[in-house]
Amino acid sequence: MKKDVPSVISFGESMIRFSTKNFERIEQAHELEMRVAGAESNFAIAFARLGGRAAWISKITNNPLGRFIANKIREHGVDVSHVIWTNDYRVGLYFIEFGKKPRPTQVIYDRKNSAIANIDPNEVDWEILKDYDTFHTTGITVALSENCKKAVEIGISKAKEFGTRVSFDVNYRSKLWSPEEAFKALDPILKNVDILLVTKDDARNVLKVDGTYEEMIHTLAERYNAEVTVLTLGSEGAMALKDDRIYKAEPYELEVVDRIGAGDAFDAGFVYEYLRSGDIQKALELGIAMAAYAHTIPGDIMFVTKDELELVITQKAHAHDVLR
Amino acid sequence: MKKDVPSVISFGESMIRFSTKNFERIEQAHELEMRVAGAESNFAIAFARLGGRAAWISKITNNPLGRFIANKIREHGVDVSHVIWTNDYRVGLYFIEFGKKPRPTQVIYDRKNSAIANIDPNEVDWEILKDYDTFHTTGITVALSENCKKAVEIGISKAKEFGTRVSFDVNYRSKLWSPEEAFKALDPILKNVDILLVTKDDARNVLKVDGTYEEMIHTLAERYNAEVTVLTLGSEGAMALKDDRIYKAEPYELEVVDRIGAGDAFDAGFVYEYLRSGDIQKALELGIAMAAYAHTIPGDIMFVTKDELELVITQKAHAHDVLR
Amino acid sequence: MKKDVPSVISFGESMIRFSTKNFERIEQAHELEMRVAGAESNFAIAFARLGGRAAWISKITNNPLGRFIANKIREHGVDVSHVIWTNDYRVGLYFIEFGKKPRPTQVIYDRKNSAIANIDPNEVDWEILKDYDTFHTTGITVALSENCKKAVEIGISKAKEFGTRVSFDVNYRSKLWSPEEAFKALDPILKNVDILLVTKDDARNVLKVDGTYEEMIHTLAERYNAEVTVLTLGSEGAMALKDDRIYKAEPYELEVVDRIGAGDAFDAGFVYEYLRSGDIQKALELGIAMAAYAHTIPGDIMFVTKDELELVITQKAHAHDVLR
Amino acid sequence: MKKDVPSVISFGESMIRFSTKNFERIEQAHELEMRVAGAESNFAIAFARLGGRAAWISKITNNPLGRFIANKIREHGVDVSHVIWTNDYRVGLYFIEFGKKPRPTQVIYDRKNSAIANIDPNEVDWEILKDYDTFHTTGITVALSENCKKAVEIGISKAKEFGTRVSFDVNYRSKLWSPEEAFKALDPILKNVDILLVTKDDARNVLKVDGTYEEMIHTLAERYNAEVTVLTLGSEGAMALKDDRIYKAEPYELEVVDRIGAGDAFDAGFVYEYLRSGDIQKALELGIAMAAYAHTIPGDIMFVTKDELELVITQKAHAHDVLR
Amino acid sequence: MKKDVPSVISFGESMIRFSTKNFERIEQAHELEMRVAGAESNFAIAFARLGGRAAWISKITNNPLGRFIANKIREHGVDVSHVIWTNDYRVGLYFIEFGKKPRPTQVIYDRKNSAIANIDPNEVDWEILKDYDTFHTTGITVALSENCKKAVEIGISKAKEFGTRVSFDVNYRSKLWSPEEAFKALDPILKNVDILLVTKDDARNVLKVDGTYEEMIHTLAERYNAEVTVLTLGSEGAMALKDDRIYKAEPYELEVVDRIGAGDAFDAGFVYEYLRSGDIQKALELGIAMAAYAHTIPGDIMFVTKDELELVITQKAHAHDVLR
Amino acid sequence: MKKDVPSVISFGESMIRFSTKNFERIEQAHELEMRVAGAESNFAIAFARLGGRAAWISKITNNPLGRFIANKIREHGVDVSHVIWTNDYRVGLYFIEFGKKPRPTQVIYDRKNSAIANIDPNEVDWEILKDYDTFHTTGITVALSENCKKAVEIGISKAKEFGTRVSFDVNYRSKLWSPEEAFKALDPILKNVDILLVTKDDARNVLKVDGTYEEMIHTLAERYNAEVTVLTLGSEGAMALKDDRIYKAEPYELEVVDRIGAGDAFDAGFVYEYLRSGDIQKALELGIAMAAYAHTIPGDIMFVTKDELELVITQKAHAHDVLR
Repeated sequence: MKKDVPSVISFGESMIRFSTKNFERIEQAHELEMRVAGAESNFAIAFARLGGRAAWISKITNNPLGRFIANKIREHGVDVSHVIWTNDYRVGLYFIEFGKKPRPTQVIYDRKNSAIANIDPNEVDWEILKDYDTFHTTGITVALSENCKKAVEIGISKAKEFGTRVSFDVNYRSKLWSPEEAFKALDPILKNVDILLVTKDDARNVLKVDGTYEEMIHTLAERYNAEVTVLTLGSEGAMALKDDRIYKAEPYELEVVDRIGAGDAFDAGFVYEYLRSGDIQKALELGIAMAAYAHTIPGDIMFVTKDELELVITQKAHAHDVLR
Repeated sequence: MKKDVPSVISFGESMIRFSTKNFERIEQAHELEMRVAGAESNFAIAFARLGGRAAWISKITNNPLGRFIANKIREHGVDVSHVIWTNDYRVGLYFIEFGKKPRPTQVIYDRKNSAIANIDPNEVDWEILKDYDTFHTTGITVALSENCKKAVEIGISKAKEFGTRVSFDVNYRSKLWSPEEAFKALDPILKNVDILLVTKDDARNVLKVDGTYEEMIHTLAERYNAEVTVLTLGSEGAMALKDDRIYKAEPYELEVVDRIGAGDAFDAGFVYEYLRSGDIQKALELGIAMAAYAHTIPGDIMFVTKDELELVITQKAHAHDVLR
Repeated sequence: MKKDVPSVISFGESMIRFSTKNFERIEQAHELEMRVAGAESNFAIAFARLGGRAAWISKITNNPLGRFIANKIREHGVDVSHVIWTNDYRVGLYFIEFGKKPRPTQVIYDRKNSAIANIDPNEVDWEILKDYDTFHTTGITVALSENCKKAVEIGISKAKEFGTRVSFDVNYRSKLWSPEEAFKALDPILKNVDILLVTKDDARNVLKVDGTYEEMIHTLAERYNAEVTVLTLGSEGAMALKDDRIYKAEPYELEVVDRIGAGDAFDAGFVYEYLRSGDIQKALELGIAMAAYAHTIPGDIMFVTKDELELVITQKAHAHDVLR
Repeated sequence: MKKDVPSVISFGESMIRFSTKNFERIEQAHELEMRVAGAESNFAIAFARLGGRAAWISKITNNPLGRFIANKIREHGVDVSHVIWTNDYRVGLYFIEFGKKPRPTQVIYDRKNSAIANIDPNEVDWEILKDYDTFHTTGITVALSENCKKAVEIGISKAKEFGTRVSFDVNYRSKLWSPEEAFKALDPILKNVDILLVTKDDARNVLKVDGTYEEMIHTLAERYNAEVTVLTLGSEGAMALKDDRIYKAEPYELEVVDRIGAGDAFDAGFVYEYLRSGDIQKALELGIAMAAYAHTIPGDIMFVTKDELELVITQKAHAHDVLR
Repeated sequence: MKKDVPSVISFGESMIRFSTKNFERIEQAHELEMRVAGAESNFAIAFARLGGRAAWISKITNNPLGRFIANKIREHGVDVSHVIWTNDYRVGLYFIEFGKKPRPTQVIYDRKNSAIANIDPNEVDWEILKDYDTFHTTGITVALSENCKKAVEIGISKAKEFGTRVSFDVNYRSKLWSPEEAFKALDPILKNVDILLVTKDDARNVLKVDGTYEEMIHTLAERYNAEVTVLTLGSEGAMALKDDRIYKAEPYELEVVDRIGAGDAFDAGFVYEYLRSGDIQKALELGIAMAAYAHTIPGDIMFVTKDELELVITQKAHAHDVLR
Repeated sequence: MKKDVPSVISFGESMIRFSTKNFERIEQAHELEMRVAGAESNFAIAFARLGGRAAWISKITNNPLGRFIANKIREHGVDVSHVIWTNDYRVGLYFIEFGKKPRPTQVIYDRKNSAIANIDPNEVDWEILKDYDTFHTTGITVALSENCKKAVEIGISKAKEFGTRVSFDVNYRSKLWSPEEAFKALDPILKNVDILLVTKDDARNVLKVDGTYEEMIHTLAERYNAEVTVLTLGSEGAMALKDDRIYKAEPYELEVVDRIGAGDAFDAGFVYEYLRSGDIQKALELGIAMAAYAHTIPGDIMFVTKDELELVITQKAHAHDVLR
C-alpha cells in the first residue's frame, strides 16, 4: 500500500437524509431532497477530498437505497469495498426540516433495525486496518447497538495491535442515549484513543469536565491520555493539547447554508493535516477552515478542494495581519 | 348520524409513498415525491369524493410524517378522528420507481414496526361501527401482524353485531406473506364478508379457484356465501354475482399515468353505488370508471368528482351505441 | 356538540395565492407556487391546529380551484361543510413576489367578482353559530362588497342572539378601501364586538386613535367597550386591556421566511387561549408565539403543533430569567 | 416599410396559461407552469419565426402579469408597440390540466373583465394596418365582447380601405358562445374575409355546411367568396380551394406533447407561404408541418425555425416517394 | 427615427449563464439555471426598461443557444436586428456558483472561440450609430480579442463622426487580461469617451489613479477629458464630475439576492437620465437606485419599471428628511 | 491484481450532457439537467455495474466541471486514478433536446478544444494495460483529434504487446467526420481488434459492407479477422460471428425513456459475459438485455444490477417458451 499520503479507515452508519426545501416544514412538503449522511462516511469523504486515502466500513442492506449510499460515498474516491452487504434489515433514514428563529431545526430519526445495528463484529475483516494510518469512529456508532459497541472495541484493539492510530469523536446524540449511558460506554473506550475529538458541550454534558476551556482540555488530556486532545468550541473556534502545550485557532465569519456535517469536516481536516505534517497548529487551522466551508455547502458531504481551503486559510491569516 | 348518504368506515395502514420522477431510478434520484398511500384510506377517500360519508381507523406515530398522512386523508373529508395516535413505533414508508418495458416497476417496502402493526385490538372504539353502513378492510391489514388480524376479526364481528355490512378486498401482497399463509388467514374471515372483492389473480393464486371467470365467481359465491361477490378482471373489466345472477362491465381504453390505487378506486365505486342504489350493474360501471380514472392520476389518491365519472360513463355508453 | 374544547366559526374569503420562488419577480417566473390564503380561514386553521374546534363559512365557485381551497382548509380539520358552493362567479386569486431591500414585496390582487363578494346574506344558515363559542371575522370581509358587509352584520347580530362571542380583527387593506370608508363601515360594527383585535397602524390610520400605546388601547376600550381589546405592536410585541388592566407580551427574535399570515396566527393563538383559560397574559404569549412561528413557515397556513409553541414559550421565559 | 418579407398584424387577446405538470390534476398541484397563450399572438409569433414581419394589437392591464404577456410575445420579434396599456381591468388567465384516456383535458377560463374585452374600438390606431400585407384575427376575438366585435369589424373595413388582406380563423370556443350566436356574429364578417380558415368541425357545427369535405369547401367558397378558403381536417390533413381548384395536404405521423396552439401554427404557416409565393400547395404543406411541430412543443408558442420545417417537409416528400 | 426618448446602441458579447440553485456547488448540482448575461446587453435591456430606445450589436452562432440569447434580449424591447449571425464558432458560456462566507462566489468562464471574438470589424454596419444618441461599450469587449478591440475603436470613431456620444465602462475582468494589458489597450480609447464610467477599484488597479475619491475623479477627468466622469464607490454610493463640479449619491440599504449585473444597471440608469434631462444629480440617483434593485433580482437582467425606481428614490429622499 | 472477475480499461472523452426536461426545446428552457456522458466511460460504468473491474483513461480539465465528470464515473466503482488532469483547455459539453415525431431529437456538440483532444499520447502510462483483460475504445476517440488517434494506436499496440484483448466499437459520429474520413482512419485500426462491435448502419455507411446481415458479418469477419465480430441490428436484435459460426439474439419489446447510451450498454454486456464465460450466445443475450434496460433509464449511465438483468433474460426466455 502507498504510504505517501495520509490514510484513514472509518467505521459507522450512513443514512439517507431527506430534507425539505426552502424552510418548508415536513407536513407541508411535496418533495424531499435525498442525500447521504453519516458522521464516519462524512469524515472519510472529507479526508479523501483533501488528498488522503480513505476507506469506510459499514453494513448495508442490498437494495437501491443501500446502493445509493455506497455510490455517493464512492463518488469521492472512498474505498467502499469493505462494506458488508446483506439482504436483511433496512437502510436507516432521517428527515430534517431546517428552522429559522424561533423555530428550531427538527430531525426525525428512523434508523432502528438498520443493517449495521445488527452487525456481527466478526463479519468485519479487521485485518484491513493494517493498511491505514488511522482508524476513525465516533460515539454514534457505539450508541447504535451492543453489537456495534463490540465492533468498535474490537476495531480499536485490532488497530492497537497493528500500530494503527485511533481517532475518535465523542459525537453525543441525545436521541440515541442519555449522557450517563454515553459516559458509561465511552469512558473506557476513550482511554484507548490516540486522537480524541470532542465538542465543549459534549465534554461538559457527557464527559463531565468543567472549568475554563483550558482547564477542560487539561482534564481530558489527563483522564484519557491521548496523543492529542482536541476541544472544539463552536463559534469560538477550536483548541488542541499535545505534550502539555495548548494550541488555538480562531473561527471564521460565517453565513450558514447547512450546518450539518461541520463537525465531521473539522475532524477530517484536523486528522489529515496532523497525519501529514504533525503540525498541530496547521491541523487546527485546516479543521476550522473545513468546518467553516461545511457550513456553506448544502448537505453533509464536503464538496471542496484542498486548494480552496488553502486560499481561505491564507486570506484569514492576512485579514489578521491587517487587524494588527 | 345522517343516513341520507352511503357511509363507510375502513381500517388499515397508510404509508408515505416516495416516488422518483420521470422514470428515474431510485439510485439516481436527488428528490423524491412524497404522497400518502394505503388501500383502506384510498378507499375511504375515493368513497368520500363520490359524496359518501367516510371514516378511517388506524394507528399512527405522532410526528410530522404521521400528521402528513392524517392531513392528506382528512383533506378529502374523511373523518380521521378515530385514529389512535402514539409516540411509539414508526410511520411505514414505501419507495417506488416506475418502470418502462422491459424494466419492471419496483417497490421497496419499509413498513416493519409501524404503529398499526403494534395495535392492541382493544384500543379501537369499535362502537363507532354502529354509525356506518359498511366496515371495509383488506387482506393487507390482516397480513400486517397478528394484532392486526385480531383487530380485523373483532371489527368484523362487531360489524355483524351492529348490522353493519362488511366489505373486504383480498388484496394479496407477496411481500407480506405467501399465498398459503394468506389463504389460511383469510379463508375463515371471508365467510363473514358481505361484499367480497377479489381480483382474478388473487382468486386463482390465493383462494385457489379455477375454471372460466363464470365458474370462478360461482365457486367463490358458493364457498363464502357473500351478499355480493365481485371478481375484477384487470384489462378485461369486472364481474359481479348476486342472487345467482352474473353482471359484467367492460373496461375503458386507457393511457396509464400511475396504476397504483386503481383497485381501491374500483372498490370504492362499487361499494358506494351498491349502498346507494343496490343496482349491481351501475355499481360495476362506477367501479370500472373509477379504476380507469385512477390510472390517469399521479399518486394513489382519487382526485375526482362524481360529475366527471358520470360524464365518462355516459360517453362510454354512447360509444357502445355507435358500435352496435 | 362537544363543549370540552374552545370552538370558533369564521367567515370570509379564501383565495389561491400564487408566489414566485427564490425572490424571482413575476415577470421572470416560469412556475408559480400555489397555496391557499385568507385571513379568516388562516385563523380557523391555526385555531384547529392548537386543538380547538373550528369551522369556516364562505362561498366558493365549484371548480378545481375552488375545491383546492376547501381541501387545503379541511386538511387541518376545519369543518368546511357550511361553505356555499356555486357554479357562478370566480375564485379569487392573488399573486405575490417577495422583495428584498430596497425592493418591496409586491402583491397583485385579482379577487373581483369572486363568489363570496356575491353572497346573499341569507344563503348562510346562521343557526350554526349556536354550536360555537365564538364567531370570527375581519375588516377584509366587510370591505369585499355590500353583501359581505350585510352578512357580517347579520352574523354578528345572530351571534349576539345565541350568546356566541364575536371576535374581530380590523385588518385594514388599502387595496380594498380608503381609511375613511373603512372607518365608516367598521365603527358601528366594532361596537358589537367582544374580542377586538387591531394593529397599532390600523388603530392610528383607520380608527384614528393616537397617543402612547397605553393611551391608544384605553381609547379603543372606551370607544368600543369590548370584553377584551388587543393592540398588536409589530416588532414590539402586543398588548391587551381587560377590565381596565393592561397586559403586555414581548416579541421574539425572528428570522423571516414568509411574513404573511402572522396576524391571523396571533389572533388564533390569543382567542384560543382566552377561550380556553380566560388568562389574558397566557393568551398574549400564545398569540405572540404563533405570530413568531408564522414568520418562519412558507405560506399563510400554520403548520405547527401546540407542543412546539409551548416549547418556544418556555424557552423564551427562561431566556428572560437569565437576563434578569 | 420594407416589403421584402410577408407581413401581418393580428388583433386579439392573450392570456396567461397556467398548467399542471406530469398529468397532475389542478386540485393536487403545488406549482403551475406559467406561459403565454392567445390565438392571434400565437399566430403572430409563428409568422415572425418563419421570417415574416409581424405585429400584434391588444389591450393589456399594466402590471407584471400584463408585462409578462407582452414580453413573451416580443421575445420572438413581434412588434407589440401598438398594444394599448391600461391601469384598469384585469389580465385574462386560463388553467389547464392535461388528461389521459379516459380523463379529458380540462380547461378553466378566467378571462372575464379582461382589458381587451373593455376595449374602445377607437382606441386602436387603425392607420397602422396600412403597413402590413394582412390583418389577421379570429372568431375568439369577436366572441369576447360587443366592443371587441365592433373593433374587428372596424379593423376589417379599414383593412379593405387600405388594400390590406384579411385572414380570419373561425376558431369557435364553446365556453364563449353558442354555435348559433357565433354564426350570427361571424356570418357577415366572413363575407369580407380574403383568407378564410376553418376546421371541419367548426364548418359543420357553426357554419352549418355539410357533405363531403370537397362539398363543404365548395359551399364555403361560394357562400363567403374568399380569395382562398382553407378547411383543416384534423388528423386527416388540410384542404384549400382557390379559383375553383382544390389542393390537399397529408398529415404527419405525430407523437403529442402539447396539442394547444396547433391550429394557430397552421394558420401562420399557410398565410406566410401564401403571401410569400402565392403557391397554395406549398402553403398547405408549410401549414401542416407547422401544426405537426406545434404538437411536439410544450406550450402554445412555436419555438421553431424555417430550416427545421423545411427539413421535415423534405423528409415527408421523400417518404412518399418511397411509398409510391 | 423618433428623437423623443433617449437612445443607445451597445456593442459586446452575451453569454449563457448557468448557475446552481440554493448555494449548491457545481460539483453537486443536477440542474443548472439558464439565463442570459453580458455587460452591454444588460445595459441595453436596463436602458429599454426605463423607457429608452435601445439596440445591441453582437455576433452570435446560429443555433438554439444563440437564439436563446437574442430572444431574451429582444424580450425587453431591445433591437437585435443588427446582430451578425454565423454558422461558425460557438456561443460563450459561464458557470457560476454563489458562495456564502467564507466560501467565495466562483465563476468558470467558457467563452473562448465565441463568435464575437472572431468578428470582422467591417461586418458591422456602423452607419446605424447615426440613429442613436449614444454608443456604449465596455472594457470587456476590448479584452475579448484583437478583432473586438479594433471594432470598438472603429465604432467609437464612427460615433464621433456622426455626433453620437460614447459611453464606456472600464469593467476590468482579471480572467481576461492583466491590469497592465488593460491599461495599455484602454488608455487611448478612454481619451475618446464622452461618458466615462469606472469603479473605484478599476480606477486604482487599472487606471492607476489614487488619493481620495475626489482626487481620483479629478485625475480621471483631467486625464481623459470626458464630458462627464463617473466613479462608482460600491457600498459607498457613486460620484460624478462635470464641468469641474462634483456630485454624489448615497447608497441604499441592501439585502442581496444576486449581485451580478448591478454595475450595468447603474450605467444604464445614469446614462438614461443624463441623456433625458442632463441633470447629473438625478442621473446618479437613478443609477444608484438601479444598482440597488439589481442586487435584489435573480440573474443579470433588470426586470424593473421606471415607476418602481421612482418610488424607491422618493422613499429614500423622505427617509433622509426624517433623519435630518 | 485479482483475476477472478473480468476486467477492462477504456479510453475516451466524457462530456457534460445538458438536457431539457419534458420535451422542451432548448430555446424555451430555464433549467437544464446535468449528467455525464461518454461512450467509453459509459462502457466502463456498465461493465463495473455487472461486477467486472473497470478503469477509464482520459484527460480532463481540473475545474468543478471536470471533477463532476470524474466523480460521476467513480460513483459506480470505475477506477479514475489514471485520468490525466490539466489546468488547460476546457471540458467538452453537449446539449440535447429530445424530440417527438416529427420533430427529431437534436444535439449541439460543444466539445472543441477539450482536454483530451489535446492529449499527448505519451502522457498516458500505457503500462497499466497489463492489469486488465481488455482495452476498449471507439471510433469517437479516434475522431477527436490526430493526437487521440495516435493514442488509440499506441494503446492498441501496447495491449497487443501485453496480451490484453482489444475491443472496439466503430461508433461513427457524423458531426465529427465524414464516412470516408472515418473509414480511412479506422480500417487499419480494426485489423488489430479482437472484439469488433459495429452497428448495421455503420457497417454499411462507414465500412461499406453490404448484403444480408449474414453476408455483412461474414465480410467483416474476413476483412478484419477479429476473434469475435458483433453486428448490432437496432430493433432487430444482434448477431455475432466466431469461428465461422453465427449467433443471434432477439430484441426486447421496448418503451423508450432515453435512448442514449444503449449501444455502450450492449458493448459492456457482451464483452463482460464473453470475458467471463466465453459463451457467445449468453454474451449476446446480456448485451441485448443491457441495451433494452438502457432505453428505460434517464441519462447515459447504466443504473442497473446484474440480478435485474438476469431476471429479464429469464422472463424473455420463458415468454418465448409460451410462444412456441
